[in-house]
Amino acid sequence: MTRPEIVLFGDSITEQSFTLGGWGAALADTYSRKADVKVRGYGGYNTRWALFLLHQIFPLDSRKPPAAATIFFGANDAALLGRTSERQHVPLEEYKENLRKIVLHLKECSPTMLIVLITPPPVDEEGRDKFARSLYGEHARRLTERTNEAAGVYAKECLELAEEMGLRSINLWSKFQETEGWQKKLLRDGLHLTPEGNAAVHQEVVRVFKEAWLSAEEMPYDFPHHSVIDGKNPEKAFEQQCIKHI
Amino acid sequence: MTRPEIVLFGDSITEQSFTLGGWGAALADTYSRKADVKVRGYGGYNTRWALFLLHQIFPLDSRKPPAAATIFFGANDAALLGRTSERQHVPLEEYKENLRKIVLHLKECSPTMLIVLITPPPVDEEGRDKFARSLYGEHARRLTERTNEAAGVYAKECLELAEEMGLRSINLWSKFQETEGWQKKLLRDGLHLTPEGNAAVHQEVVRVFKEAWLSAEEMPYDFPHHSVIDGKNPEKAFEQQCIKHI
Repeated sequence: MTRPEIVLFGDSITEQSFTLGGWGAALADTYSRKADVKVRGYGGYNTRWALFLLHQIFPLDSRKPPAAATIFFGANDAALLGRTSERQHVPLEEYKENLRKIVLHLKECSPTMLIVLITPPPVDEEGRDKFARSLYGEHARRLTERTNEAAGVYAKECLELAEEMGLRSINLWSKFQETEGWQKKLLRDGLHLTPEGNAAVHQEVVRVFKEAWLSAEEMPYDFPHHSVIDGKNPEKAFEQQCIKHI
Repeated sequence: MTRPEIVLFGDSITEQSFTLGGWGAALADTYSRKADVKVRGYGGYNTRWALFLLHQIFPLDSRKPPAAATIFFGANDAALLGRTSERQHVPLEEYKENLRKIVLHLKECSPTMLIVLITPPPVDEEGRDKFARSLYGEHARRLTERTNEAAGVYAKECLELAEEMGLRSINLWSKFQETEGWQKKLLRDGLHLTPEGNAAVHQEVVRVFKEAWLSAEEMPYDFPHHSVIDGKNPEKAFEQQCIKHI
């Protein structure tokens, strides 16, 4: 049996999801022996740059397209004009249209793909400021390159698109802010995730996948569990899955 | 650019390699944006049962076979006859021949695949005994189902085969025992790995891959790093890799 594939497509928060305690690695563990988790995270990328990658990551002629994908962009798109990261800024309307293009491409790739949109997380401006000072010292700009307000506006747009297109979504911007002390508890530099923040994302993704049809508990193991293999007649357990012995 | 794939083929120590602090997840992070790590670990499996999976996991007609694979069996093969886990026992000579069959199949799959054999880790009999008691209480057998001596004999056989076939190998059985207090420091139940044990395996695999030709530092990113993307002319960075915009 070949396992279905789950692709995590996004920016640095996706790219770093296999660091210690990361949500991507935890997801791979949740779907252990049931689905493969493939990371396609690109630090610093916005939705405009992500469009260049679509045909490579999700080729239309794939014989086995992914069963599910998370689309997790916006943290860079929401970087403010006139500040340090303006190169990454993408106007709000374009952000939404880019997300739409990504979704349409994935649907063309496979009409049955489970697509989950994830909003950018909230921004802890104090944390960003501290991070900038750790990099640039006194030369750090007085105004942070991202604000929580802007991230919230992009998050809202992401949710609206999910609604319009009938997709499932995770409102991380709101979800995180429900936690007392989210600024330091869930974020390590005002933007990227602590292990607790990673655990929260993992939990949300598992929940949404389960609410759709991708529940790990209900999925079969790829091969027999060792406990059902008869030590004297091992072939029996494998024959049921039509597996040829070498 | 499609990323090369690294397959981790083995028993529970491979299956559990994506738990928190696991060596598989750490490897995926080391090769972030450079190679994909695919886990094919089967708890409780010995080499005899692993043979049933070969054609499924490593199909001979694959258009893109893995670039590298770790083969990490033996902990179950070395379970002793006449004790609790004897169902999993595989005689020493057969263990070696099964490993040989696995390697030959992988080489048929791709003659250039980097194949690394990993020996079983040492066994902390006291830890196994404690674990058995935690499961079966007073009914636990007095004699543990695995011994360090037996694991060492299987490890030696694994290394001999690697030598015979000109393959790289990791002598985990010896390596672990170089660490003072390895019994509790590197193993959590006398057999499976603690986070420190996982870190040690990760370090060894990275070292051996690097000594071969699979050095993460020397491999290119799959797509441009965001810092080389011109905000006003993003296409330039992507054109160099012949990437079509959607």
